[in-house]
Amino acid sequence: MELLYEGKAKRIYKTDNPNEVICEFKDSLTAFNGEKASQEAGKGALNCAITTLIFEALEKEGIPTHLIKQIDETKQLVKKVEIIPIEVVVRNIAAGSLAKRLGLKEGEKLPFTIVEFYYKNDDLNDPLINDDHAMILNLVDNRKELDLLRDYGRKVNDFLTKFFDKVGLILVDFKIEFGKDENGNIILADEITPDSCRLWDKKTGQKLDKDLFRFNLGDIKEAYTEVLNRLKEVK
Amino acid sequence: MELLYEGKAKRIYKTDNPNEVICEFKDSLTAFNGEKASQEAGKGALNCAITTLIFEALEKEGIPTHLIKQIDETKQLVKKVEIIPIEVVVRNIAAGSLAKRLGLKEGEKLPFTIVEFYYKNDDLNDPLINDDHAMILNLVDNRKELDLLRDYGRKVNDFLTKFFDKVGLILVDFKIEFGKDENGNIILADEITPDSCRLWDKKTGQKLDKDLFRFNLGDIKEAYTEVLNRLKEVK
Repeated sequence: MELLYEGKAKRIYKTDNPNEVICEFKDSLTAFNGEKASQEAGKGALNCAITTLIFEALEKEGIPTHLIKQIDETKQLVKKVEIIPIEVVVRNIAAGSLAKRLGLKEGEKLPFTIVEFYYKNDDLNDPLINDDHAMILNLVDNRKELDLLRDYGRKVNDFLTKFFDKVGLILVDFKIEFGKDENGNIILADEITPDSCRLWDKKTGQKLDKDLFRFNLGDIKEAYTEVLNRLKEVK
Repeated sequence: MELLYEGKAKRIYKTDNPNEVICEFKDSLTAFNGEKASQEAGKGALNCAITTLIFEALEKEGIPTHLIKQIDETKQLVKKVEIIPIEVVVRNIAAGSLAKRLGLKEGEKLPFTIVEFYYKNDDLNDPLINDDHAMILNLVDNRKELDLLRDYGRKVNDFLTKFFDKVGLILVDFKIEFGKDENGNIILADEITPDSCRLWDKKTGQKLDKDLFRFNLGDIKEAYTEVLNRLKEVK
Protein backbone atom coordinates (compact mmCIF):
# COMPACT_ATOMS: atom_id res chain seq x y z
CA MET A 1 0.00 0.00 0.00
CA GLU A 2 1.24 3.50 -0.83
CA LEU A 3 1.68 5.65 2.27
CA LEU A 4 0.16 9.10 1.79
CA TYR A 5 0.77 10.55 5.25
CA GLU A 6 2.10 9.50 8.61
CA GLY A 7 1.15 11.35 11.76
CA LYS A 8 1.89 10.75 15.43
CA ALA A 9 -0.92 8.21 15.88
CA LYS A 10 -2.03 7.22 12.37
CA ARG A 11 -0.90 6.30 8.87
CA ILE A 12 -2.98 7.07 5.77
CA TYR A 13 -2.68 4.83 2.70
CA LYS A 14 -3.88 5.24 -0.87
CA THR A 15 -6.57 2.96 -2.36
CA ASP A 16 -7.73 2.39 -5.95
CA ASN A 17 -10.64 4.73 -5.31
CA PRO A 18 -9.49 8.39 -5.37
CA ASN A 19 -12.16 9.33 -2.82
CA GLU A 20 -11.23 6.65 -0.28
CA VAL A 21 -8.14 6.04 1.84
CA ILE A 22 -7.11 3.54 4.51
CA CYS A 23 -6.50 4.85 8.00
CA GLU A 24 -4.23 2.73 10.21
CA PHE A 25 -4.12 3.29 13.98
CA LYS A 26 -0.56 3.09 15.35
CA ASP A 27 0.57 1.76 18.72
CA SER A 28 2.55 4.93 19.43
CA LEU A 29 1.61 7.21 22.29
CA THR A 30 2.69 10.84 22.44
CA ALA A 31 1.94 13.70 24.81
CA PHE A 32 2.97 17.30 25.43
CA ASN A 33 3.33 17.97 21.71
CA GLY A 34 5.49 14.90 21.16
CA GLU A 35 7.92 15.63 24.02
CA LYS A 36 6.87 12.44 25.74
CA ALA A 37 6.60 9.39 23.47
CA SER A 38 6.16 5.66 23.88
CA GLN A 39 4.76 2.50 22.31
CA GLU A 40 1.98 0.28 23.64
CA ALA A 41 1.40 -2.91 21.66
CA GLY A 42 -2.31 -3.34 20.98
CA LYS A 43 -3.24 0.32 21.57
CA GLY A 44 -3.82 0.90 17.85
CA ALA A 45 -6.30 -1.97 17.66
CA LEU A 46 -8.16 -0.75 20.76
CA ASN A 47 -8.45 2.81 19.42
CA CYS A 48 -9.50 1.55 15.99
CA ALA A 49 -12.29 -0.51 17.56
CA ILE A 50 -13.41 2.32 19.85
CA THR A 51 -13.49 4.89 17.04
CA THR A 52 -15.42 2.52 14.76
CA LEU A 53 -17.99 1.84 17.46
CA ILE A 54 -18.43 5.57 18.25
CA PHE A 55 -18.43 6.81 14.65
CA GLU A 56 -21.06 4.21 13.69
CA ALA A 57 -23.21 5.39 16.60
CA LEU A 58 -22.72 9.06 15.61
CA GLU A 59 -23.69 8.32 12.00
CA LYS A 60 -26.98 6.88 13.30
CA GLU A 61 -27.48 10.17 15.17
CA GLY A 62 -27.14 12.08 11.91
CA ILE A 63 -23.59 13.30 12.37
CA PRO A 64 -21.65 12.65 9.15
CA THR A 65 -18.26 10.96 9.57
CA HIS A 66 -15.51 9.82 7.23
CA LEU A 67 -15.89 6.17 8.28
CA ILE A 68 -16.88 3.66 5.60
CA LYS A 69 -15.98 0.47 7.47
CA GLN A 70 -13.36 -1.18 9.61
CA ILE A 71 -11.29 -3.56 7.48
CA ASP A 72 -8.98 -5.24 9.97
CA GLU A 73 -7.87 -4.92 13.60
CA THR A 74 -6.09 -1.59 13.15
CA LYS A 75 -7.47 -0.25 9.87
CA GLN A 76 -10.52 1.60 8.64
CA LEU A 77 -11.59 2.38 5.10
CA VAL A 78 -12.53 6.05 5.21
CA LYS A 79 -13.60 8.83 2.86
CA LYS A 80 -10.66 10.89 1.69
CA VAL A 81 -10.93 14.36 3.19
CA GLU A 82 -8.87 17.48 3.39
CA ILE A 83 -8.38 17.91 7.13
CA ILE A 84 -9.39 21.33 8.49
CA PRO A 85 -6.37 22.30 10.64
CA ILE A 86 -8.49 23.16 13.66
CA GLU A 87 -8.67 20.99 16.77
CA VAL A 88 -12.21 21.38 18.08
CA VAL A 89 -12.14 20.88 21.84
CA VAL A 90 -15.37 20.46 23.81
CA ARG A 91 -15.30 20.64 27.60
CA ASN A 92 -17.84 19.81 30.28
CA ILE A 93 -15.52 19.82 33.30
CA ALA A 94 -12.36 21.88 33.95
CA ALA A 95 -9.19 19.83 33.43
CA GLY A 96 -5.81 19.96 31.73
CA SER A 97 -4.86 23.13 29.87
CA LEU A 98 -8.20 24.85 30.57
CA ALA A 99 -7.82 24.57 34.34
CA LYS A 100 -4.27 25.91 34.07
CA ARG A 101 -5.13 28.71 31.60
CA LEU A 102 -8.08 30.13 33.52
CA GLY A 103 -7.10 29.21 37.07
CA LEU A 104 -10.02 26.77 37.50
CA LYS A 105 -9.99 23.78 39.81
CA GLU A 106 -9.39 20.45 38.06
CA GLY A 107 -12.67 18.54 38.23
CA GLU A 108 -14.88 21.64 38.58
CA LYS A 109 -18.05 21.28 36.52
CA LEU A 110 -18.32 24.16 34.03
CA PRO A 111 -21.55 26.23 34.17
CA PHE A 112 -22.09 25.20 30.54
CA THR A 113 -20.30 23.19 27.87
CA ILE A 114 -17.65 25.23 26.08
CA VAL A 115 -16.04 24.84 22.68
CA GLU A 116 -12.49 25.90 21.86
CA PHE A 117 -10.51 26.02 18.63
CA TYR A 118 -6.82 25.22 18.51
CA TYR A 119 -4.67 25.76 15.44
CA LYS A 120 -3.37 22.30 14.50
CA ASN A 121 0.30 23.18 14.08
CA ASP A 122 3.03 21.25 15.90
CA ASP A 123 5.67 23.92 15.30
CA LEU A 124 3.50 26.44 17.14
CA ASN A 125 2.44 23.95 19.82
CA ASP A 126 -1.23 23.94 18.70
CA PRO A 127 -2.16 27.40 20.04
CA LEU A 128 -5.66 28.41 21.16
CA ILE A 129 -7.23 30.67 18.54
CA ASN A 130 -10.37 32.74 18.17
CA ASP A 131 -12.59 33.07 15.10
CA ASP A 132 -10.64 36.04 13.70
CA HIS A 133 -7.41 34.04 13.89
CA ALA A 134 -9.02 31.12 12.04
CA MET A 135 -10.10 33.50 9.30
CA ILE A 136 -6.77 35.32 8.82
CA LEU A 137 -5.03 31.92 8.69
CA ASN A 138 -7.55 30.73 6.05
CA LEU A 139 -8.28 27.60 8.08
CA VAL A 140 -11.88 27.64 6.82
CA ASP A 141 -13.65 29.35 3.92
CA ASN A 142 -16.04 31.45 6.00
CA ARG A 143 -17.38 32.10 9.50
CA LYS A 144 -20.41 29.86 8.94
CA GLU A 145 -18.03 26.91 8.80
CA LEU A 146 -16.70 27.86 12.24
CA ASP A 147 -20.28 27.94 13.55
CA LEU A 148 -20.86 24.51 11.99
CA LEU A 149 -17.75 23.11 13.71
CA ARG A 150 -19.02 24.44 17.06
CA ASP A 151 -22.49 23.06 16.35
CA TYR A 152 -21.14 19.59 15.47
CA GLY A 153 -18.89 19.74 18.54
CA ARG A 154 -21.87 20.34 20.81
CA LYS A 155 -23.95 17.65 19.08
CA VAL A 156 -21.19 15.08 19.40
CA ASN A 157 -20.88 16.06 23.06
CA ASP A 158 -24.61 15.77 23.74
CA PHE A 159 -24.66 12.27 22.28
CA LEU A 160 -21.38 11.03 23.74
CA THR A 161 -22.07 12.37 27.23
CA LYS A 162 -25.16 10.14 27.41
CA PHE A 163 -23.43 7.28 25.61
CA PHE A 164 -20.56 7.18 28.12
CA ASP A 165 -22.85 7.87 31.06
CA LYS A 166 -24.73 4.64 30.30
CA VAL A 167 -21.53 2.70 30.96
CA GLY A 168 -20.53 4.61 34.07
CA LEU A 169 -18.06 7.00 32.43
CA ILE A 170 -17.95 10.79 32.71
CA LEU A 171 -16.98 12.58 29.51
CA VAL A 172 -14.81 15.41 30.86
CA ASP A 173 -13.62 16.81 27.52
CA PHE A 174 -12.53 15.71 24.08
CA LYS A 175 -10.81 16.84 20.89
CA ILE A 176 -12.21 16.16 17.43
CA GLU A 177 -11.12 17.01 13.91
CA PHE A 178 -13.08 17.55 10.76
CA GLY A 179 -12.35 17.31 7.07
CA LYS A 180 -13.92 18.29 3.77
CA ASP A 181 -14.92 15.52 1.42
CA GLU A 182 -14.75 15.70 -2.39
CA ASN A 183 -17.99 17.72 -2.44
CA GLY A 184 -16.76 20.21 0.15
CA ASN A 185 -19.00 18.81 2.88
CA ILE A 186 -17.61 19.05 6.39
CA ILE A 187 -17.56 15.64 8.09
CA LEU A 188 -16.10 14.24 11.30
CA ALA A 189 -12.70 12.61 10.72
CA ASP A 190 -9.70 11.42 12.71
CA GLU A 191 -10.69 9.53 15.89
CA ILE A 192 -12.64 9.53 19.13
CA THR A 193 -10.67 7.43 21.62
CA PRO A 194 -9.23 7.59 25.14
CA ASP A 195 -6.26 9.31 23.45
CA SER A 196 -8.51 12.22 22.48
CA CYS A 197 -11.05 12.22 25.36
CA ARG A 198 -10.81 12.53 29.12
CA LEU A 199 -12.95 9.79 30.64
CA TRP A 200 -13.40 9.38 34.38
CA ASP A 201 -15.14 6.50 36.12
CA LYS A 202 -18.40 7.80 37.58
CA LYS A 203 -18.07 5.92 40.87
CA THR A 204 -14.34 5.92 41.59
CA GLY A 205 -13.20 9.01 39.65
CA GLN A 206 -10.48 6.80 38.14
CA LYS A 207 -8.99 8.11 34.88
CA LEU A 208 -9.42 5.84 31.87
CA ASP A 209 -7.63 7.93 29.25
CA LYS A 210 -4.28 9.25 28.02
CA ASP A 211 -3.71 11.19 31.27
CA LEU A 212 -2.58 7.78 32.62
CA PHE A 213 0.30 7.97 30.16
CA ARG A 214 0.86 11.76 30.47
CA PHE A 215 1.32 11.57 34.23
CA ASN A 216 2.43 7.92 34.69
CA LEU A 217 -0.73 7.08 36.60
CA GLY A 218 -1.45 3.57 35.40
CA ASP A 219 -1.76 1.01 32.64
CA ILE A 220 -3.04 2.41 29.35
CA LYS A 221 -3.93 -0.90 27.75
CA GLU A 222 -5.97 -2.09 30.70
CA ALA A 223 -7.89 1.20 30.81
CA TYR A 224 -8.55 1.39 27.06
CA THR A 225 -9.68 -2.28 27.07
CA GLU A 226 -12.06 -1.41 29.91
CA VAL A 227 -13.50 1.51 27.89
CA LEU A 228 -13.97 -0.69 24.81
CA ASN A 229 -15.60 -3.50 26.78
CA ARG A 230 -18.02 -1.12 28.47
CA LEU A 231 -18.97 0.53 25.18
CA LYS A 232 -19.63 -2.89 23.61
CA GLU A 233 -22.29 -3.44 26.28
CA VAL A 234 -24.43 -0.48 25.15
CA LYS A 235 -23.78 -0.69 21.46
CA MET B 1 -6.72 62.07 48.72
CA GLU B 2 -7.83 58.56 49.62
CA LEU B 3 -6.19 55.93 47.42
CA LEU B 4 -8.76 53.41 46.14
CA TYR B 5 -6.51 51.32 43.92
CA GLU B 6 -2.95 51.23 42.65
CA GLY B 7 -2.04 49.39 39.48
CA LYS B 8 1.19 49.07 37.53
CA ALA B 9 0.73 52.37 35.66
CA LYS B 10 -2.03 54.25 37.51
CA ARG B 11 -3.43 55.22 40.89
CA ILE B 12 -7.14 55.79 41.50
CA TYR B 13 -8.27 58.23 44.22
CA LYS B 14 -11.65 58.88 45.81
CA THR B 15 -13.49 62.20 45.34
CA ASP B 16 -16.48 63.73 47.12
CA ASN B 17 -18.70 62.56 44.27
CA PRO B 18 -19.40 58.80 44.55
CA ASN B 19 -19.61 58.53 40.74
CA GLU B 20 -16.28 60.21 40.05
CA VAL B 21 -12.68 59.30 40.81
CA ILE B 22 -9.27 60.77 40.06
CA CYS B 23 -6.93 58.78 37.83
CA GLU B 24 -3.21 59.50 38.20
CA PHE B 25 -0.72 58.37 35.56
CA LYS B 26 2.48 57.01 37.11
CA ASP B 27 6.01 57.25 35.75
CA SER B 28 6.56 53.52 36.12
CA LEU B 29 7.11 51.32 33.10
CA THR B 30 6.53 47.57 33.14
CA ALA B 31 6.67 44.87 30.50
CA PHE B 32 6.40 41.09 30.21
CA ASN B 33 3.76 40.95 32.96
CA GLY B 34 5.87 43.03 35.35
CA GLU B 35 9.06 41.00 34.91
CA LYS B 36 10.82 44.04 33.50
CA ALA B 37 10.20 47.28 35.40
CA SER B 38 11.61 50.79 35.41
CA GLN B 39 10.81 54.44 36.05
CA GLU B 40 10.86 57.29 33.54
CA ALA B 41 10.30 60.75 35.03
CA GLY B 42 7.70 62.62 32.99
CA LYS B 43 6.19 59.53 31.33
CA GLY B 44 3.03 59.81 33.45
CA ALA B 45 2.44 63.38 32.31
CA LEU B 46 3.01 62.45 28.65
CA ASN B 47 0.57 59.53 28.83
CA CYS B 48 -1.99 61.61 30.69
CA ALA B 49 -1.86 64.30 27.98
CA ILE B 50 -2.00 61.75 25.13
CA THR B 51 -4.95 59.88 26.64
CA THR B 52 -6.85 63.13 27.28
CA LEU B 53 -6.30 64.28 23.70
CA ILE B 54 -7.40 60.91 22.25
CA PHE B 55 -10.37 60.34 24.57
CA GLU B 56 -11.68 63.85 23.81
CA ALA B 57 -11.42 63.09 20.11
CA LEU B 58 -13.17 59.72 20.56
CA GLU B 59 -16.01 61.35 22.52
CA LYS B 60 -16.59 63.67 19.55
CA GLU B 61 -16.81 60.55 17.37
CA GLY B 62 -19.60 59.19 19.58
CA ILE B 63 -17.53 56.67 21.53
CA PRO B 64 -18.35 57.09 25.23
CA THR B 65 -15.34 57.30 27.57
CA HIS B 66 -14.85 57.70 31.30
CA LEU B 67 -13.02 61.02 30.90
CA ILE B 68 -14.55 64.10 32.48
CA LYS B 69 -11.50 66.41 32.31
CA GLN B 70 -7.79 66.57 32.91
CA ILE B 71 -7.13 68.35 36.23
CA ASP B 72 -3.34 68.61 36.36
CA GLU B 73 -0.26 67.33 34.53
CA THR B 74 -0.70 63.69 35.55
CA LYS B 75 -4.34 63.48 36.69
CA GLN B 76 -7.75 63.13 35.11
CA LEU B 77 -11.17 63.39 36.72
CA VAL B 78 -13.04 60.36 35.39
CA LYS B 79 -16.36 58.58 35.86
CA LYS B 80 -16.13 55.81 38.39
CA VAL B 81 -16.54 52.50 36.60
CA GLU B 82 -16.30 48.84 37.40
CA ILE B 83 -13.55 47.66 35.05
CA ILE B 84 -14.49 44.69 32.85
CA PRO B 85 -11.51 42.34 33.29
CA ILE B 86 -11.03 41.85 29.55
CA GLU B 87 -8.17 43.40 27.60
CA VAL B 88 -9.59 44.15 24.16
CA VAL B 89 -6.74 43.98 21.65
CA VAL B 90 -7.19 45.25 18.09
CA ARG B 91 -4.58 44.46 15.47
CA ASN B 92 -3.95 45.73 11.95
CA ILE B 93 -0.43 44.38 11.46
CA ALA B 94 1.19 41.22 12.87
CA ALA B 95 3.53 42.00 15.77
CA GLY B 96 4.39 40.89 19.28
CA SER B 97 2.49 37.94 20.73
CA LEU B 98 0.28 37.49 17.64
CA ALA B 99 3.25 37.01 15.32
CA LYS B 100 4.73 34.49 17.76
CA ARG B 101 1.45 32.65 18.45
CA LEU B 102 0.44 32.16 14.82
CA GLY B 103 3.85 32.06 13.17
CA LEU B 104 3.29 35.30 11.22
CA LYS B 105 6.03 37.64 10.11
CA GLU B 106 6.42 40.76 12.27
CA GLY B 107 5.23 43.70 10.18
CA GLU B 108 2.95 41.62 7.91
CA LYS B 109 -0.30 43.48 7.20
CA LEU B 110 -3.27 41.33 8.29
CA PRO B 111 -5.92 40.63 5.62
CA PHE B 112 -8.39 42.34 7.95
CA THR B 113 -8.41 43.94 11.38
CA ILE B 114 -8.78 41.38 14.14
CA VAL B 115 -10.02 41.67 17.72
CA GLU B 116 -8.80 39.51 20.59
CA PHE B 117 -9.89 39.19 24.20
CA TYR B 118 -7.39 38.57 27.00
CA TYR B 119 -8.41 37.77 30.55
CA LYS B 120 -6.97 40.60 32.68
CA ASN B 121 -5.34 38.50 35.37
CA ASP B 122 -1.68 38.96 36.31
CA ASP B 123 -1.46 35.63 38.15
CA LEU B 124 -2.46 33.84 34.95
CA ASN B 125 -0.32 36.07 32.71
CA ASP B 126 -3.36 37.63 30.95
CA PRO B 127 -4.26 34.59 28.81
CA LEU B 128 -6.02 34.80 25.43
CA ILE B 129 -9.64 33.73 25.80
CA ASN B 130 -12.62 33.07 23.55
CA ASP B 131 -16.24 34.10 24.12
CA ASP B 132 -17.12 30.87 25.97
CA HIS B 133 -14.26 31.47 28.40
CA ALA B 134 -15.44 35.04 29.05
CA MET B 135 -18.91 33.69 29.83
CA ILE B 136 -17.88 30.88 32.19
CA LEU B 137 -15.63 33.35 34.04
CA ASN B 138 -18.57 35.80 34.34
CA LEU B 139 -16.43 38.60 32.91
CA VAL B 140 -19.54 40.11 31.28
CA ASP B 141 -23.28 39.68 31.79
CA ASN B 142 -24.10 38.32 28.34
CA ARG B 143 -22.71 37.66 24.86
CA LYS B 144 -24.12 40.92 23.50
CA GLU B 145 -21.67 42.76 25.73
CA LEU B 146 -18.82 40.84 24.08
CA ASP B 147 -20.13 41.90 20.66
CA LEU B 148 -20.29 45.49 21.92
CA LEU B 149 -16.65 45.33 23.08
CA ARG B 150 -15.62 44.06 19.64
CA ASP B 151 -17.73 46.73 17.96
CA TYR B 152 -16.22 49.53 20.06
CA GLY B 153 -12.75 48.07 19.46
CA ARG B 154 -13.23 48.28 15.69
CA LYS B 155 -14.72 51.79 15.88
CA VAL B 156 -11.83 53.05 18.00
CA ASN B 157 -9.47 51.45 15.50
CA ASP B 158 -11.18 53.01 12.47
CA PHE B 159 -10.92 56.44 14.01
CA LEU B 160 -7.42 56.12 15.47
CA THR B 161 -5.91 54.60 12.34
CA LYS B 162 -6.86 57.75 10.41
CA PHE B 163 -5.98 60.03 13.33
CA PHE B 164 -2.44 58.64 13.59
CA ASP B 165 -2.05 58.40 9.83
CA LYS B 166 -2.54 62.18 9.57
CA VAL B 167 0.61 62.65 11.66
CA GLY B 168 2.68 60.03 9.86
CA LEU B 169 2.16 57.18 12.34
CA ILE B 170 1.03 53.63 11.62
CA LEU B 171 -1.28 52.15 14.25
CA VAL B 172 -0.06 48.54 14.36
CA ASP B 173 -2.16 47.34 17.30
CA PHE B 174 -3.50 48.50 20.65
CA LYS B 175 -5.08 47.34 23.90
CA ILE B 176 -8.09 49.03 25.46
CA GLU B 177 -10.17 48.41 28.54
CA PHE B 178 -13.79 49.15 29.29
CA GLY B 179 -15.79 49.69 32.43
CA LYS B 180 -19.43 49.92 33.47
CA ASP B 181 -20.66 53.22 34.89
CA GLU B 182 -23.27 53.59 37.63
CA ASN B 183 -26.05 52.95 35.08
CA GLY B 184 -24.41 49.80 33.74
CA ASN B 185 -23.36 51.48 30.49
CA ILE B 186 -20.15 50.16 28.96
CA ILE B 187 -17.68 53.01 28.36
CA LEU B 188 -14.03 53.22 27.35
CA ALA B 189 -11.75 53.53 30.38
CA ASP B 190 -8.06 53.20 31.27
CA GLU B 191 -5.76 54.79 28.67
CA ILE B 192 -4.69 54.98 25.03
CA THR B 193 -0.98 55.78 24.99
CA PRO B 194 2.30 54.54 23.50
CA ASP B 195 2.31 52.12 26.47
CA SER B 196 -0.85 50.46 25.11
CA CYS B 197 -0.39 50.93 21.34
CA ARG B 198 2.27 49.95 18.82
CA LEU B 199 3.02 53.03 16.71
CA TRP B 200 5.51 52.98 13.84
CA ASP B 201 6.73 55.97 11.88
CA LYS B 202 5.25 55.76 8.37
CA LYS B 203 8.45 56.82 6.59
CA THR B 204 11.24 55.32 8.69
CA GLY B 205 9.44 52.39 10.35
CA GLN B 206 10.89 53.62 13.66
CA LYS B 207 9.04 52.41 16.75
CA LEU B 208 7.52 55.14 18.94
CA ASP B 209 6.01 52.97 21.67
CA LYS B 210 6.73 50.71 24.65
CA ASP B 211 8.61 48.22 22.47
CA LEU B 212 11.51 50.69 22.85
CA PHE B 213 11.50 49.83 26.55
CA ARG B 214 10.65 46.12 26.11
CA PHE B 215 13.62 45.52 23.83
CA ASN B 216 15.97 48.37 24.87
CA LEU B 217 15.67 50.01 21.46
CA GLY B 218 15.70 53.69 22.36
CA ASP B 219 14.56 56.57 24.50
CA ILE B 220 10.96 56.29 25.70
CA LYS B 221 10.52 59.91 26.73
CA GLU B 222 11.76 61.28 23.43
CA ALA B 223 9.44 58.96 21.49
CA TYR B 224 6.34 59.65 23.63
CA THR B 225 7.02 63.41 23.42
CA GLU B 226 7.22 63.05 19.64
CA VAL B 227 3.84 61.23 19.59
CA LEU B 228 2.22 63.91 21.76
CA ASN B 229 3.64 66.78 19.70
CA ARG B 230 2.47 65.22 16.45
CA LEU B 231 -1.03 64.59 17.83
CA LYS B 232 -1.26 68.21 19.02
CA GLU B 233 -0.82 69.27 15.38
CA VAL B 234 -4.02 67.55 14.18
CA LYS B 235 -6.12 68.09 17.27
